[in-house]
Amino acid sequence: MDKTEKLRLIMKEKDIDLIVLSPGANLNWLLNFNPHADERPLLFFLTQSGSAFLMPELEAESARQHTDIKFYNWSDASGPLSSIDSLLNDLKGFSSRTIVIDDTMRADHAAIVQDKLLNSNRLFTASTIGALRMQKDATEQHILTLNAHQADTAMEMAWAKINVGMKEEEVASVIKKSFSDQGASPQFSIVAAGSNSAFPHHQTGSTELKEGDVIVIDLGGKFKGYASDITRMACVGSPPTDYSLVHQIVEDSVCAALAAAMPGQIAKNVDKAARDVIEKAGFGEYFIHRTGHGLGSEIHEPPFITSTSETILEPGMVFSIEPGIYIPNKFGVRLEEIVILEEHGPVVLSKLSRELKILN
Amino acid sequence: MDKTEKLRLIMKEKDIDLIVLSPGANLNWLLNFNPHADERPLLFFLTQSGSAFLMPELEAESARQHTDIKFYNWSDASGPLSSIDSLLNDLKGFSSRTIVIDDTMRADHAAIVQDKLLNSNRLFTASTIGALRMQKDATEQHILTLNAHQADTAMEMAWAKINVGMKEEEVASVIKKSFSDQGASPQFSIVAAGSNSAFPHHQTGSTELKEGDVIVIDLGGKFKGYASDITRMACVGSPPTDYSLVHQIVEDSVCAALAAAMPGQIAKNVDKAARDVIEKAGFGEYFIHRTGHGLGSEIHEPPFITSTSETILEPGMVFSIEPGIYIPNKFGVRLEEIVILEEHGPVVLSKLSRELKILN
Repeated sequence: MDKTEKLRLIMKEKDIDLIVLSPGANLNWLLNFNPHADERPLLFFLTQSGSAFLMPELEAESARQHTDIKFYNWSDASGPLSSIDSLLNDLKGFSSRTIVIDDTMRADHAAIVQDKLLNSNRLFTASTIGALRMQKDATEQHILTLNAHQADTAMEMAWAKINVGMKEEEVASVIKKSFSDQGASPQFSIVAAGSNSAFPHHQTGSTELKEGDVIVIDLGGKFKGYASDITRMACVGSPPTDYSLVHQIVEDSVCAALAAAMPGQIAKNVDKAARDVIEKAGFGEYFIHRTGHGLGSEIHEPPFITSTSETILEPGMVFSIEPGIYIPNKFGVRLEEIVILEEHGPVVLSKLSRELKILN
Repeated sequence: MDKTEKLRLIMKEKDIDLIVLSPGANLNWLLNFNPHADERPLLFFLTQSGSAFLMPELEAESARQHTDIKFYNWSDASGPLSSIDSLLNDLKGFSSRTIVIDDTMRADHAAIVQDKLLNSNRLFTASTIGALRMQKDATEQHILTLNAHQADTAMEMAWAKINVGMKEEEVASVIKKSFSDQGASPQFSIVAAGSNSAFPHHQTGSTELKEGDVIVIDLGGKFKGYASDITRMACVGSPPTDYSLVHQIVEDSVCAALAAAMPGQIAKNVDKAARDVIEKAGFGEYFIHRTGHGLGSEIHEPPFITSTSETILEPGMVFSIEPGIYIPNKFGVRLEEIVILEEHGPVVLSKLSRELKILN
């Protein structure tokens, strides 16, 4: 059964009449087609029995190389509105009681669709394509495993180059270069030194690394359409006196989450396992984010490992375990693994130790 | 008067009660602040007298380094809904008859705002921030001029490296490297050889350049937050026999649009000037896109030079003139200039000739 057939089964189950996707991860997953995205609405419409593209005229010839699905072209002169009318009229067997809109669609494009279907219930993609995308097949798992090893290499390259006086952004450049050299496309590289490490999403900048700084490095690239993501801790010289204690608590939290993450478990219980360790140690107020997120063609995708997620974990899911403790004006510690959930439990993809890496 | 004051004047004129922005070009233009964007809603709310951020807790400490505006934090555990309620309650003097949503906001984030303000009229940013962003100040014009010269250099670098047998994507790599070497960030590089040139937005791929191929190269980078964009035609050896005629028609179309683009002119008349030349030559059906778009922090932004645009052109605007003729299965020709509109007319930023570049 191909992906579109699987998706239509879910549409029937959930009584969904129409799914509308924009260029991006969902469309690329479904049709293996990633058209050019700009301010011109280019939208894919899928009903239980039909499908069509709303297509900017200047993209049509190029897009036709990738798909046989019917196009409703519109020009810069005409605008998209009458083409959408024709498209919706032609999609037979279609009612518009419940429609699904791509989460990441631009708001102005979503408005065009919703204004045409004013009395519909609107959902987003999490419960349909999101649910299907959570299940990674063997090929996807293989690519994600390769990617994790590329990320390990980028981390080791950063460690090898770090010196006192280097700027965070220079470390980030080393990471980007390592991904490029491996044929991957760099996606992000958070390098947070000293007290900057207390910001989970620190904007990597011109801060210079000093002796005794702890350094959060959180990096990821994309290779063959899939992402990598890993976080490790390093220190130039000796860390602050209370560092080891906090690092050990985060390590224990990772281990507790890994132990909890078994098939059949509810995602929120994995978050609870990680959070309980940190709360019992008295640092609960400093763990200010969820425990993890799915990883695939997007860096963040379902399943989300949060305190409220009712998602049941199943073999084939790939997600992060990344608790952290962030003490303002002192330092932060985050340790992040990507795991593939197998029948017997989670398999960690990285080969790097989670111990503090001491750099000299 | 600062940008926020200017924007509030427009809000008063147009009776707009609330503007909501997500991370991106509009927010960065207004506050010089470009926070991390992901699936967690991070939104800026501006009323005629107040302002506030809806802020994911894990971004708050880092974001606080960039702004003093009040934050309404929400955690992965709580979700954003009750924080939005508090935020909207606290924004004094605020009614929600007419709200403006950032065009590029994710649809799922826009839904959160709109579901809280169900009886509002919804507009997008074109007539408010879009209108202000059209007017480039002296600093912006200076950066855009520098960027145009970087783009010229990238084009010349591509021409210098092109050889028969090279793949389109290898030419694109040369362009990317040239931008990187100049300290800019590569944004796009369309390289379309032979009959691929008939696709205005060809997906640059593994097509090898052959003797006699015409090659569209459309490239741009970003430097100091602003974009560049230029298109030129090249040929390896001698072009097809009917090529020169078509190139000359596109050149005449560029000249006609440049002559029409005077302050006080309506944008659609510039499109008409370009289009008339091509239609009179009998190629009207092959000019399948607008004549131009604004250029600034985004590659496409207002003013748009289309057959229906009523925008009145004013000194300080920066936009492209880029007519094209695309003959399926044969070749396409596009020539693109970026101009700054001054009191006496448009000033072309590129120093490169628009003649066909013959490569040997």
